[in-house]
Amino acid sequence: MNDIIFRTERLKPHVVGFDNQQLANEARGAFHQLLEGTGSGSDFLGWVDWPEKIDTAIVKNISSDVARIAPKIKIFVVIGIGGSYLGARAVIEALQGAFGNNGPRVVYAGHTLGEDYYADLLDLLDANDYAVAVISKSGTTTEPAVAFRIVRQHLERKYGRDEAARRIIAITDASRGALRQIATDEGYSTYVIPDNIGGRFSVLTPVGLVPIAMAGHDIEALLGGARAMRAVCISSDDPATNPAMRYAMVRQAALRQGYPVEMLVNFNPQLVYLGEWWKQLYGESEGKDGRGILPHSATFTTDLHSMGQYIQDGQRLLFETVLSVANPRRRVCIPMDDEKNLDGLNYLKGKSVNDINHCAQEGTVMAHNAGGVPVLEIEVPEIGEHTLGELIYFFEFACGLSAYMTGVNPFDQPGVEAYKSNMFHLLGKPGA
Amino acid sequence: MNDIIFRTERLKPHVVGFDNQQLANEARGAFHQLLEGTGSGSDFLGWVDWPEKIDTAIVKNISSDVARIAPKIKIFVVIGIGGSYLGARAVIEALQGAFGNNGPRVVYAGHTLGEDYYADLLDLLDANDYAVAVISKSGTTTEPAVAFRIVRQHLERKYGRDEAARRIIAITDASRGALRQIATDEGYSTYVIPDNIGGRFSVLTPVGLVPIAMAGHDIEALLGGARAMRAVCISSDDPATNPAMRYAMVRQAALRQGYPVEMLVNFNPQLVYLGEWWKQLYGESEGKDGRGILPHSATFTTDLHSMGQYIQDGQRLLFETVLSVANPRRRVCIPMDDEKNLDGLNYLKGKSVNDINHCAQEGTVMAHNAGGVPVLEIEVPEIGEHTLGELIYFFEFACGLSAYMTGVNPFDQPGVEAYKSNMFHLLGKPGA
Repeated sequence: MNDIIFRTERLKPHVVGFDNQQLANEARGAFHQLLEGTGSGSDFLGWVDWPEKIDTAIVKNISSDVARIAPKIKIFVVIGIGGSYLGARAVIEALQGAFGNNGPRVVYAGHTLGEDYYADLLDLLDANDYAVAVISKSGTTTEPAVAFRIVRQHLERKYGRDEAARRIIAITDASRGALRQIATDEGYSTYVIPDNIGGRFSVLTPVGLVPIAMAGHDIEALLGGARAMRAVCISSDDPATNPAMRYAMVRQAALRQGYPVEMLVNFNPQLVYLGEWWKQLYGESEGKDGRGILPHSATFTTDLHSMGQYIQDGQRLLFETVLSVANPRRRVCIPMDDEKNLDGLNYLKGKSVNDINHCAQEGTVMAHNAGGVPVLEIEVPEIGEHTLGELIYFFEFACGLSAYMTGVNPFDQPGVEAYKSNMFHLLGKPGA
Repeated sequence: MNDIIFRTERLKPHVVGFDNQQLANEARGAFHQLLEGTGSGSDFLGWVDWPEKIDTAIVKNISSDVARIAPKIKIFVVIGIGGSYLGARAVIEALQGAFGNNGPRVVYAGHTLGEDYYADLLDLLDANDYAVAVISKSGTTTEPAVAFRIVRQHLERKYGRDEAARRIIAITDASRGALRQIATDEGYSTYVIPDNIGGRFSVLTPVGLVPIAMAGHDIEALLGGARAMRAVCISSDDPATNPAMRYAMVRQAALRQGYPVEMLVNFNPQLVYLGEWWKQLYGESEGKDGRGILPHSATFTTDLHSMGQYIQDGQRLLFETVLSVANPRRRVCIPMDDEKNLDGLNYLKGKSVNDINHCAQEGTVMAHNAGGVPVLEIEVPEIGEHTLGELIYFFEFACGLSAYMTGVNPFDQPGVEAYKSNMFHLLGKPGA
């Protein structure tokens, strides 16, 4: 699995047979449904080959927009919700510093209807030079459409309509929809959301690439990681060599053996939003027809001091997938200038924070496993564009497999419409 | 329930009998265990009367430390984990702006062992004047002890040992422990963590009050809200007038009728960390002996576009507690200067973002309820110190009741030790 390590030892003794022939056959069937387009929702399989097939002009155009816009802004507002929001944020938060970014600061809008949030955002935009990406297939999804009206008015008043148009990038349908029309009328730089890639599978399209590049990160390396993982995932329908098949099999075995909740656990706070992206990917793909694993997430050791007690000793509902990172980007060692040693930490002499983190991780996996929690471990060498590209493709491919094994269409989301139609009715939308 | 509204209509038809006599009797028993100290863990009931009994000198001393320190800092580092972290963060994030604070910026440490996080933190501390609160009963909990060594060394090198001592506030045991000893040796300003209040119930003690006050918020109003809610919660063992009893009864009814997961839902992004605090409070209090409701949380409408599909149509595991806020602090209306109306939003004329948010909320509650999700609704008039004090006390009191109804000790956390003892062994700690 390239440089990603996959450990199943700690699933036992709680989940058994995750590598048995029946599950392998199911996974093999799902594999062929995905690659041959014979399963439900097969109009939305564009993401499978995307890392190979992406037009190199897209990356060039993005680089050109970044070179044109980034030097003149402090803030880049990314307007989008769901799949038009979480993928970019997951990658950007993983790669930027804990307290900010060297490039433009990316802030988000259109992902909430919190009024105070928009008041605070307008203050920020009053005080700083900025540009905007607006990401919406139709241009009429309520949250981003509302945000774009607010931000566009502010931008046009601040810079004038012509300069505002040079500061807006629209990522939308190739030809149809309100946002495409506005972009054409106003002359925005535009990128296309492919018809055959749904929102939660779109982070490697311009939906994610534009914000990630504007934040200063290497989108070619991200795509390279996805290509490398694609080669692994599509090359064989043998679970022994296909980690995405193994992950899907483990999940199905856990679900069927009484663990309806999966908690994606990380030990690095910059991965919080990767967990949020993963929750959408799996929850929205599998949670339908009364089925599916309920996704949960946690960041340790932080949440060992909040959710840890429940995981260790509470009702046995969940299995954990621990996403661990071998190496940090930078080193911080424990100072050893305390002769009194009142805090008793001198025994940690020569250890880095990450060394302690790894012992905490190993200790946690052992403890939870002893407490009755099946634990799957996925380890990457470091957090960088290449490994994030690998992880994204790995989770996407395994999600398609796992959803087919669940017996649902991985690529629709009919339940998301229910609140919207009620909301439109309550708002008095014409025709609702 | 003061100015907090509690609606149970949308629990039906999925959860029935949540107001029946048997549950009322159980809740009444738990009520008397709490107030009379006859239940397990009764050494840790100090939080029940704390809002009334708090020594006014504490608030005065905090104000004096804030007046002395705040003007000379840009950053206030709060070192703590679990109950020494989440309560303060929940209140501060609820009250500060979405993109920062007018007073000192509060940043956190000792809640993670992410090495990159500390490298980034040291960069921030190189570039800005700062002070520190270190919060630990013993001073030897690994995460905060490691962070305090790192930050203290940096602080002493930056300002010299004497000035560093004037920039450190220690919140710790009254007389015992490593941190108390260090604070005495160095002459830090100190506050006491009461012996009879556990971490997850400690936000209204100096553990939370010091950071909240340093961020510029009104801790007297916070305590006032808690006092008001205490009066409501302790005055009657009749569920008809005691909302904390009703909440505990609803939770137990839901759990026993097949909903093992509770999702605390908000519609305001500044409440994300209130959800994190709530997850510790309930998860750590109830998740033991193989029992308890698994806490989950979500922020809508953001997560309607990620977890919404699962909640609407996935496996029926969860009930929702929706925490809604009637009024925003500030107004933002939808611009109506778009004659072409390509985005189709002109029907929202005269509506604020919050109006739309409320329709989304009502539409969501209806949709989820129709999809088989029991929904409890708790509404507060606004997000402010007083209502946060009310909510904190309400959730704490109901948690004590609900945990006693679950048949567990609400105030211990034996499972948190398991990973620690493995970790100490792996780290080669003397005696481990």
